[in-house]
Amino acid sequence: MEKSWATPAGGVVAAPGCRVGGADLHLDLSGPGGVRAALIRALREAVRSGRLAPGTRLPSSRSLAADLGLARNTVADAYGELVAEGWLTARQGSGTRVAQRAAPRPPSRRTLPLRAATRPLYDLRTGTADVSAFPRTAWLTAARRALSAAPSEAFGYGDGQGRPELRTALADYLARARGVRTDPDRIVLCAGFMQGLALLGRVLRKRGIRETGVESYGLWHHQETVTRAGLRGVPLTVDRQGARVQELDGRKGLRAVLLTPAHQFPTGVSLHPDRRTAVVDWASRVGGVIVEDDYDGEFRYDRQPVGALQGLAPEHVVYCGTTSKSLAPGLRLAWLVLPDHLVGDVLELRATGEWGCGALDQLTLAEFLTSGAYDRHVRSMRLRYRRRRDQLVAALAEHAPHLRVSGIAAGLHAVLELPPGTERETVRAAAWQGLAVEGLSRFRHPSAPETDREGLIVAYGTPPDHAFSGVLDALLRALPPAE
Amino acid sequence: MEKSWATPAGGVVAAPGCRVGGADLHLDLSGPGGVRAALIRALREAVRSGRLAPGTRLPSSRSLAADLGLARNTVADAYGELVAEGWLTARQGSGTRVAQRAAPRPPSRRTLPLRAATRPLYDLRTGTADVSAFPRTAWLTAARRALSAAPSEAFGYGDGQGRPELRTALADYLARARGVRTDPDRIVLCAGFMQGLALLGRVLRKRGIRETGVESYGLWHHQETVTRAGLRGVPLTVDRQGARVQELDGRKGLRAVLLTPAHQFPTGVSLHPDRRTAVVDWASRVGGVIVEDDYDGEFRYDRQPVGALQGLAPEHVVYCGTTSKSLAPGLRLAWLVLPDHLVGDVLELRATGEWGCGALDQLTLAEFLTSGAYDRHVRSMRLRYRRRRDQLVAALAEHAPHLRVSGIAAGLHAVLELPPGTERETVRAAAWQGLAVEGLSRFRHPSAPETDREGLIVAYGTPPDHAFSGVLDALLRALPPAE
Repeated sequence: MEKSWATPAGGVVAAPGCRVGGADLHLDLSGPGGVRAALIRALREAVRSGRLAPGTRLPSSRSLAADLGLARNTVADAYGELVAEGWLTARQGSGTRVAQRAAPRPPSRRTLPLRAATRPLYDLRTGTADVSAFPRTAWLTAARRALSAAPSEAFGYGDGQGRPELRTALADYLARARGVRTDPDRIVLCAGFMQGLALLGRVLRKRGIRETGVESYGLWHHQETVTRAGLRGVPLTVDRQGARVQELDGRKGLRAVLLTPAHQFPTGVSLHPDRRTAVVDWASRVGGVIVEDDYDGEFRYDRQPVGALQGLAPEHVVYCGTTSKSLAPGLRLAWLVLPDHLVGDVLELRATGEWGCGALDQLTLAEFLTSGAYDRHVRSMRLRYRRRRDQLVAALAEHAPHLRVSGIAAGLHAVLELPPGTERETVRAAAWQGLAVEGLSRFRHPSAPETDREGLIVAYGTPPDHAFSGVLDALLRALPPAE
Repeated sequence: MEKSWATPAGGVVAAPGCRVGGADLHLDLSGPGGVRAALIRALREAVRSGRLAPGTRLPSSRSLAADLGLARNTVADAYGELVAEGWLTARQGSGTRVAQRAAPRPPSRRTLPLRAATRPLYDLRTGTADVSAFPRTAWLTAARRALSAAPSEAFGYGDGQGRPELRTALADYLARARGVRTDPDRIVLCAGFMQGLALLGRVLRKRGIRETGVESYGLWHHQETVTRAGLRGVPLTVDRQGARVQELDGRKGLRAVLLTPAHQFPTGVSLHPDRRTAVVDWASRVGGVIVEDDYDGEFRYDRQPVGALQGLAPEHVVYCGTTSKSLAPGLRLAWLVLPDHLVGDVLELRATGEWGCGALDQLTLAEFLTSGAYDRHVRSMRLRYRRRRDQLVAALAEHAPHLRVSGIAAGLHAVLELPPGTERETVRAAAWQGLAVEGLSRFRHPSAPETDREGLIVAYGTPPDHAFSGVLDALLRALPPAE
């Protein structure tokens, strides 16, 4: 019986045929790369798909060559190649046979998709900026300049600390914009803040630190990263002045604390000046390390940003910054500004090569910073987010004047305070509107004492511009009515 | 006494002055951002640099405003800001003072540079390709297309598996070029092979695997990565047919093996067809996992590349590929092609966010592959490296016919075999010529039995084109003479 097989492009070609193991075998010798390569491909495919069963004896090279109208050497070469690849076996006296193990790939055993395919209509969840505003053209311009100017060695493995061009640009920028005091040698570039935190956690653990203070409200996955590194998180109460750092005092063994001083996540308050000085005092008294997560320090609306805590005590604070809020999380670029005494340990971990970070985006970001494009982008995003914040505040003042909104001086989110007992229902009502939004309680540390604070974290930075009014409407519809 | 301070740009400006704590204080109010921002900056700088000592009482806002010719509110605002940042303290009755902890940053305590600054004149060490040949223009073209076409969500956090555009392009490319059998869902993108190996090691350890076979000659840092993950490396003898995989048999508990089948590193041989089938048999018998490091599979000179082992047994082989040899290590891009049963565990680790990988280069590589630019680049590099190999072989045939060169059918390096007892001296003689080159013995596993094999690993892919003749000359001068 004559058969023919579909070509990869979907068409059907008349293919040269031969008899193998008593059955006709059609081999499609079309495609790029000459007849020898095509024969190898066709035989490999026939074995792979199961058309040539394991153990089947192939015709001699002379006979197949005659069938296909090819030179005998071409066929012998192809057989040799497939023997080398393990598809066929060649034994003295038993000819060339299909190898036993070349079974076709079993169909995927996964029946469930790896991620839920559902996506909410409207999204006010925290964690990402408005990624639709990524400055594609300006970024490409910077990439072109950076790639043209880069020395060849920039394309090599690098040294684990990150490109010096970017570390230099960051040292300048952070001094100027955030009051950070450093030199490029104390900056380590990372593929995202979580990676930096993982590195730090391991380094602190190696120093014998077993516990770290964390804020009683915060991001789960940050605290899990710290836990994975072997440090137990000890929650500090977060109140209207930020984390109660005085709770660090007198806890022996507690020599590290993870804070969001400029804009507490998620409650949105700044760490009170007294507490800023108190935590720095604590660190210098006990030889402790403050990890300062400055995730959205660029975005402050009502006055100049609060400077980094790091500027007060560079030898006790690790400053962590990222492009995830200012540009895009997809870049996976973050930086640690380290006290001198931690640089060596962090670089030792980086030298393992397990935590890499592409050089090209580093070079591009350096150019983006030094050319002023970063400042321009941040300024324009600050205006855009501020406008959204104002819209949110105005809409709430008009339609839900009974609810208090806080944490609005900075950042990409606000806290909409809710009457006790209404948070869960409100999140559910929002879901009915197609709106994904997170309740405050999901950010509470599991071993922090219960409070009656309830609210929504409204991440007004997340939606694209064109969707924002729709998002606001959905939010308003979901809110609990005045008593 | 009147003083003035240098501006950041290096010029000297006449600055407004005032008296603070009995001394003249000059504040440079030039620079961007308005007089309020400038005053904050200037005061912060004065505290930071120690010009304003801790505890110093500042003039009242009224008096400083008069001195500087500013509105009183401007000064009061600036004080407020610096109190918020922790530079100053304001207490009822004691006025505004410089905070106690704002000490200037101590000079760096590191006295040694972090890396040796010495770089050899000529470099034949393994590990990197000719990075001077990175296709900058073609890459930028692909980046422009990729960034224009990317959906907004590509700039978000992503799912830990890597961009679907690249996984799809790779599934096609690897099937075509390397005989790999997979679908995009079983590919996980990593920031370099080492990261992939670290992930795999952890996953295997979690499965209860405690030992893994490794080749008796190989890369130290690969074996260290496996060890860090908690797996003991058990060396398999490498001979002229590759790793003796038969040594896996009968070792209980050994259910993983790390191999370089296409081109053993560093000895340069291909795994013998019998051993390819034997190792796959072993894996299916014991439920083992073969980790196939296909680091330079694209570069084979004398015939079609040996197909990937993975194609024989997709459910037992993890195929690992990278752009480090084909494009540039600086990209930090690699991929794992996983058996179905390992995908979930690897993604679970990736979901921690500690191992990130920038999306922009992933999108660009996808475009680079699908547009054919990758094939063009590999083809041109294959010609270039082949020319170098031919030059090397010809030079050795002429000037050192007493030495055998092997492992030259593929890849970016050859093995120059040396008489017993001469390797160490030859490496040292090369160093005197300004040539960095590695001896074979430094790649031997520490618990592998000693052999009398000695040689140089000549990574002819490393130098830039223009330096290659100089490198060859230096190498020839360092070689031991014929007996």
